[in-house]
Amino acid sequence: MIVLGIDPGYALMGWGVVEAQGSRMRLVDYGCVETYAGTPMQHRLRSLYLGVRDLVNIYRPDDVAFEELFFAHNVTTALMVGAARGAAIIAATEYTEQLYEYTPMQIKQAVTGSGRADKKQVQQMVRLLLHLKETPQPDDAADAIACAITHCQAGVSKEQFRMK
Amino acid sequence: MIVLGIDPGYALMGWGVVEAQGSRMRLVDYGCVETYAGTPMQHRLRSLYLGVRDLVNIYRPDDVAFEELFFAHNVTTALMVGAARGAAIIAATEYTEQLYEYTPMQIKQAVTGSGRADKKQVQQMVRLLLHLKETPQPDDAADAIACAITHCQAGVSKEQFRMK
Repeated sequence: MIVLGIDPGYALMGWGVVEAQGSRMRLVDYGCVETYAGTPMQHRLRSLYLGVRDLVNIYRPDDVAFEELFFAHNVTTALMVGAARGAAIIAATEYTEQLYEYTPMQIKQAVTGSGRADKKQVQQMVRLLLHLKETPQPDDAADAIACAITHCQAGVSKEQFRMK
Repeated sequence: MIVLGIDPGYALMGWGVVEAQGSRMRLVDYGCVETYAGTPMQHRLRSLYLGVRDLVNIYRPDDVAFEELFFAHNVTTALMVGAARGAAIIAATEYTEQLYEYTPMQIKQAVTGSGRADKKQVQQMVRLLLHLKETPQPDDAADAIACAITHCQAGVSKEQFRMK
């Protein structure tokens, strides 16, 4: 099973592709779709949309796992991050119906065994679980990989995490 | 000039097409793209995206004018409305670069002469300016038409309302 994990963001949208065979997992690729302040919003959203469209077409994931957003500093930020997430969801949905969603706490729990783990612990476990020499950078990409790992580990219980 | 006005929303996205020749304006068509509670979010966003894509392809507007969102009851609502707006912007941008944005106050000012006009006054002026027998319904469609009228009346000053 190939899983594309996405950490939705407006300036940086992290992504990671993980292949799972049974309990074995392998990191296929990862990175960020980046958009730049000063660029008109319509172009930034379109870049995010096209970026995710490229990802699903290149890696052909069976499932796409999103990190759920449930905080934002303020309403204006939430409008922008919501739009970025919408762009990613629309692009993913054109390719597959298999969209899933995990909260940051569920991801921490799945990857480290504790819902209260900090960023460093999550990244350390991502490195260990995928037998990497280095921690993937930037953080947004590492978060997306952690989200993909979480989905791989959800197994048959993944249905409860289907995007609603 | 043909203008598509859009009042972005998640459950109801109002739209109105206005044709302007000099100071004369004519209502071409209007309506709402509707999505339903209980439908998975990915399908609701895709419906909004496809709905707006159909609109630009059918009516071939020169410009698209969005009503700007700058309030929401809370962050969760803002995330959803932001996503809906993002869906509309992505669809419109595929068709044209000519996207503009007006605040509710700018729309009220342009349509009624007062930034403090209430909904009823705006709808009444929409009816009069477009020589309609009835006020267009629902409110979301009337708001979108008012937004299109505002853009038609902006004339050469429209550049300052270009989406950033």
